[in-house]
Amino acid sequence: MAQGDIEKLIQLLAKLPGLGPRSARRAALHLLKKRETLMQPLARALEETARSVRSCGSCGNLDSIDPCAICTDARRDVSIVCVVEEVGDLWAMERSASYRGLYHVLGGRLSALDGVGPDDLRVAGLVARAQNGSTKEIIIATSATVDGQTTAHYLQDRLTDAGVEMTRLAHGVPVGGELDFLDDGTIMTALKARRPV
Amino acid sequence: MAQGDIEKLIQLLAKLPGLGPRSARRAALHLLKKRETLMQPLARALEETARSVRSCGSCGNLDSIDPCAICTDARRDVSIVCVVEEVGDLWAMERSASYRGLYHVLGGRLSALDGVGPDDLRVAGLVARAQNGSTKEIIIATSATVDGQTTAHYLQDRLTDAGVEMTRLAHGVPVGGELDFLDDGTIMTALKARRPV
Repeated sequence: MAQGDIEKLIQLLAKLPGLGPRSARRAALHLLKKRETLMQPLARALEETARSVRSCGSCGNLDSIDPCAICTDARRDVSIVCVVEEVGDLWAMERSASYRGLYHVLGGRLSALDGVGPDDLRVAGLVARAQNGSTKEIIIATSATVDGQTTAHYLQDRLTDAGVEMTRLAHGVPVGGELDFLDDGTIMTALKARRPV
Repeated sequence: MAQGDIEKLIQLLAKLPGLGPRSARRAALHLLKKRETLMQPLARALEETARSVRSCGSCGNLDSIDPCAICTDARRDVSIVCVVEEVGDLWAMERSASYRGLYHVLGGRLSALDGVGPDDLRVAGLVARAQNGSTKEIIIATSATVDGQTTAHYLQDRLTDAGVEMTRLAHGVPVGGELDFLDDGTIMTALKARRPV
């Protein structure tokens, strides 16, 4: 059993997603073995990031500058805004390196079960951006789950008067996906949305 | 894609055992959401632990005091020393709450493959403790792996002149283990070491 300081560290590490009590202990031991090369740099990085990083006032992305690097990037197309649920989704879009417009992070999705209503999401800011004149297209990229779809429909209703084009990400068979391993809903959607070759 | 500070944090988190690049991103986002309640406390805990925790000069355990809390615990039986490979093994023994003697952490195990020889382990300290007059029994609790067994045999050779009783942890079917899921080696060992009921 670890003592005092170490026990406290393990308890904090165990709160990270992906680390349970057992792997938190392993992580703590690993850190204690690499004090100079990993533990102290990690402590400093956490401290600095906690201090410097804030939500972008325009899109909700996390960055140490506000507006964020994406909103201020002159090479990006300001006429397209992609609406995502979380910053993690924004990062996923950026990793695909296939999108050069702006983003709008909702900060979650509507969920009756979790008590998340429209006022808990950054919807008002999105409506304002839809009406700002420079926005031509809004891509709704919420999750393909029930709550994600509910959120998408709600946004369509709210944005319908703004006079911008609204689009959705295509649904279908993921690239590299084998039919045998796909759920029925995906196959059904892919079949309905089939396209001529 | 995360930027600057966040990217650096993710890279450090990804070096923890149990976290890959993907789960490190998830952990970073989780931390950024819980800045006051998790991120800053974790930064402080890492900093403090890195500064305060050291190896016990006697047994090799990690603690913020030296000698450690176990070595200085007057209620423990100083006549028994349990030899383990790593501090994690010591913690596992302590969690079982079935041992009230002292420990000796070797800091690894002999491994020809990894180039770990006797001089890389805390063997000299163990020999000295075996000869200090108060030690009556040494329990060798190295892993039940080839390298662990090699280490155990080596320690038996080195300690044979010290005049202390030497014992090994029993090997056999783990409690709760089903025969169907056990490897042949374990079943063979358990069969050889069978005991009258």
